[in-house]
Amino acid sequence: MDAPVDPSEVEFDVVGIGNALVDVLSHESEEFVDALGVVKGSMTLVDEARSGEIYAMTGPAVEISGGSAANTIVGIAAMGGRAEYVGKVRDDQLGTVFAHDIRAMGVTYEVEPASGGPATGSCLILVTPDAQRTMNTCLGASVHLGPDDVERSHIERASVLYLEGYLFDPPEAQEAFRVAAGYAHEAGRIVSATLSDSFCVERHHGAFRDLVSNHVDLVFANEAEILALYGTEDFDVAVSRVRDDVRFAALTRSEKGSVVIGDGEVIEVPAAPVEDLVDTTGAGDLYASGFLHGFSRGADLEACGWLGSRAASEVISHLGARPEADMAAMATEVLSR
Amino acid sequence: MDAPVDPSEVEFDVVGIGNALVDVLSHESEEFVDALGVVKGSMTLVDEARSGEIYAMTGPAVEISGGSAANTIVGIAAMGGRAEYVGKVRDDQLGTVFAHDIRAMGVTYEVEPASGGPATGSCLILVTPDAQRTMNTCLGASVHLGPDDVERSHIERASVLYLEGYLFDPPEAQEAFRVAAGYAHEAGRIVSATLSDSFCVERHHGAFRDLVSNHVDLVFANEAEILALYGTEDFDVAVSRVRDDVRFAALTRSEKGSVVIGDGEVIEVPAAPVEDLVDTTGAGDLYASGFLHGFSRGADLEACGWLGSRAASEVISHLGARPEADMAAMATEVLSR
Repeated sequence: MDAPVDPSEVEFDVVGIGNALVDVLSHESEEFVDALGVVKGSMTLVDEARSGEIYAMTGPAVEISGGSAANTIVGIAAMGGRAEYVGKVRDDQLGTVFAHDIRAMGVTYEVEPASGGPATGSCLILVTPDAQRTMNTCLGASVHLGPDDVERSHIERASVLYLEGYLFDPPEAQEAFRVAAGYAHEAGRIVSATLSDSFCVERHHGAFRDLVSNHVDLVFANEAEILALYGTEDFDVAVSRVRDDVRFAALTRSEKGSVVIGDGEVIEVPAAPVEDLVDTTGAGDLYASGFLHGFSRGADLEACGWLGSRAASEVISHLGARPEADMAAMATEVLSR
Repeated sequence: MDAPVDPSEVEFDVVGIGNALVDVLSHESEEFVDALGVVKGSMTLVDEARSGEIYAMTGPAVEISGGSAANTIVGIAAMGGRAEYVGKVRDDQLGTVFAHDIRAMGVTYEVEPASGGPATGSCLILVTPDAQRTMNTCLGASVHLGPDDVERSHIERASVLYLEGYLFDPPEAQEAFRVAAGYAHEAGRIVSATLSDSFCVERHHGAFRDLVSNHVDLVFANEAEILALYGTEDFDVAVSRVRDDVRFAALTRSEKGSVVIGDGEVIEVPAAPVEDLVDTTGAGDLYASGFLHGFSRGADLEACGWLGSRAASEVISHLGARPEADMAAMATEVLSR
């Protein structure tokens, strides 16, 4: 496949926009998650008071920079891609941590931290013994990401724009989402988005349907998300619907791999083997890293999906949603075949 | 061996005093550590400006609560011991993290956070590929731990007082150290201390010699530290000196295990096997956890040393200095033999 935009004509391969969060990971029992009344494996939005209540009940934790699109962008940079991130933190300790970590991975990150208002957003991630993660997100400063933080020149300078569905939660960010997609299309760039979470799709169902039908060229979704989008329980039905709606799609199915759709063609891609499943946090984010890295460099869709599978299997073999292995070597190996 | 104090007569087994720090761990190359001009494996004190400089150069990091004596106390609580901690943080995000994590492990922690002054202390830990850790500590709020933070009733209610040698670095904490040791001895408690770091011993050589000779009943040290204390290069010379100086000693020698001294008797204890050496941060701290837990419960000295070896081998098999395995089961297994 040809690259969607000639890489030599742009400064960046991918620019991602998302909720900038620091993850707070702790190991908890199934009973603990049940007692909270949240659905295991889902993301629940909580306010600062509720976040504090849950935090007080959790065990000792580890803090690692996160945020769905930020994880994806870090993965792309780790593979050697030229990557930029847009998201809002506050000028506090966790905001400093977030900015340090994303820049330390070679990502361009130029958004000014907020000097007032809520603290840097956090995501309490409860990792159960089955390696599933259940998330409680306090959006904090990330809700203040608005259209003003999205500069036209920053969107135009990347081949692919990548947006996380979680952006539909903060109202200002929804608008930033649409503005950014407009800038990208006006410059002839590709607009991609992930649906993020089936409950997020249900919360903003109309907006997501409009998004996929009218504003996005490449959509990422897992099985639950694509079923929620089309209100069906039949995966094959969802596949046929998404084929009509968007030019490209990558539908992930955990250990069953992914289904990649491009210009009507449907390709099944296997999952990559995982030696030691520790924490599924970031699996979808890193799948998107691999796919987008291949895609922006003009790899064929099967290779894009396979690089996604490989990257996902790396991130679920350790705690946290940021890659630790030599991702550049992995990308070179997959893309040079 | 009889317990030093009848456990039924006290509320706590061990109370630890130390510099309260949040660890910031990143993986770095040997060349990176060389370029900083610090000695690999050592702890260097840095001011806030230098800490910021080093942080700006490091790769993406993980934040985990730390502090040498705090790690030891957490290990004791994890084994089922009744444990208390005294150390100072600020009322900022990392201070909240520190207090949450230590309390989440069941440790009693009642020191008020500082409402002004420097931020919560941090320790930039550079983990090299050989699993060695090189530490750059910015003491921050922990320098404000002073004699006023040490309440006589809190010291009296524990069988064993445990002090980290790093406390000799902040001037007020030195005084807190002496005050606490006085309270403990007046109540008939055991005073234990770790020498912490050979460079720390050299920085405060006279104070450490006085400490070991006159104020401490049980001393923990690794090979480099005990050699630095007695100004010798011969381990056997150091062993014979320490036998004359203190009633109990536990001298750790990495993969060679430890030498335990009690009332003049010298016992060699092997190291416990390690399947996968990841990060040596906390090895000495967790050795002290195992030893002190056994000691406070009246285990014989060989069992104390072996529980120390087992706990150390657990903590070096993953990132960070806080235990992750079922330490209570480990303690029960070792102590019931």
